[in-house]
Amino acid sequence: MQVDVITLFPEVVTVPLGASIMGRAREKGVLDLRVHDLRKHGMGKYRQVDDAPFGGGPGMVMRPEPIAAMLEEVRTPQSKVIFMTPQGKPFDQATARRLSTEPHLIFLCGHYEGVDQRIVDTCVDEEISLGDYVLTNGAIAAAVIVDAIVRLVPGVLGDDESAVQESFTESGLLDHPHYTRPAEWQGQRVPDILLSGDHGKIAKWRKEQARERTRKNRPDLLPPEQPA
Amino acid sequence: MQVDVITLFPEVVTVPLGASIMGRAREKGVLDLRVHDLRKHGMGKYRQVDDAPFGGGPGMVMRPEPIAAMLEEVRTPQSKVIFMTPQGKPFDQATARRLSTEPHLIFLCGHYEGVDQRIVDTCVDEEISLGDYVLTNGAIAAAVIVDAIVRLVPGVLGDDESAVQESFTESGLLDHPHYTRPAEWQGQRVPDILLSGDHGKIAKWRKEQARERTRKNRPDLLPPEQPA
Repeated sequence: MQVDVITLFPEVVTVPLGASIMGRAREKGVLDLRVHDLRKHGMGKYRQVDDAPFGGGPGMVMRPEPIAAMLEEVRTPQSKVIFMTPQGKPFDQATARRLSTEPHLIFLCGHYEGVDQRIVDTCVDEEISLGDYVLTNGAIAAAVIVDAIVRLVPGVLGDDESAVQESFTESGLLDHPHYTRPAEWQGQRVPDILLSGDHGKIAKWRKEQARERTRKNRPDLLPPEQPA
Repeated sequence: MQVDVITLFPEVVTVPLGASIMGRAREKGVLDLRVHDLRKHGMGKYRQVDDAPFGGGPGMVMRPEPIAAMLEEVRTPQSKVIFMTPQGKPFDQATARRLSTEPHLIFLCGHYEGVDQRIVDTCVDEEISLGDYVLTNGAIAAAVIVDAIVRLVPGVLGDDESAVQESFTESGLLDHPHYTRPAEWQGQRVPDILLSGDHGKIAKWRKEQARERTRKNRPDLLPPEQPA
């Protein structure tokens, strides 16, 4: 999968996506990541990329020309352009799955007050939001979304990793609690059932724990109660 | 505000929080960020931090001892320990505001299949999720949340930045579209009203646009329709 990211802060994207599993995906050639500094197409002596908003108000707005020039450079017939913005559709695991089958994604990161709407109207295929909170810039949001998408591309996760933490997206429940060595730590023992070797009972216990935790932390994920 | 982050991938946190507004907050001394490599307290010759799960299953689970040792080192009487996990409460702007008044936050990042539940039960004050999607590690999630929280600390954003993109969290609506120079770009003109100089009309137009955009992209944010 080819991924291009257009941002004013390339290292904010490059470094998180160079570590650990994403770094290995790039080494294996499964992820071809290219991060582009928008200032390359900045205007004038100071490589300006923003200007004051028409109609007044705080902050600066990113001008259309530098973005259009950068998109011209990286776009291919099969690329999909995604704009990271709190105005977009909230990102979720289903969106991650859908985008993980695309051959070429281009992420445009917002900075400052926003991006000239004409760019959004004419060049952007999808607007995506990380969640209902505000960040200082869109680059870190793009890094998160690339991570969530690329880990689903075949060949990125090892066999042992591939089932990891998927449970809540498959079953609609949160994950069950995990325990590892030592069996006793600071006077606290691992639940006996996990040491029992009875895999049927362990599976049942984990499912109950997952349901209980979902009820406590995320009742919104549970199906509505059936009337008795 | 003091922020400690405990992770296996320090640079994933350090680099995004060194750029732009977060970098300036650190230079100004408003943010005292310390990122700790958990492997410092890893066990044995290979500084092991994880082990196989009791009860079987895929992946590795982070052992309690290295995390407890690291928390021992960074904890203060006023610190609050936050564990980044898809099992947590979904992060939102209200949580960002609440946490922005804390003097000392410690973020514990999950990696692999998860963290031994005894650590969560005995050492963690809050469990927070970035959203309903799965990431390869919790470090990038911690970077996002620190960004969202710290930008709300007084003195971090400049006067001109402070109102930026807050609108949707204040009004309950998405932000209105933004336009900047040039007034005409590739045959597309900025809406005439923004060039009119009539600030009353501009404010009304922006509110209508925000409402229309919210209806289209995020109907869940609108209050329920009143019956006629």
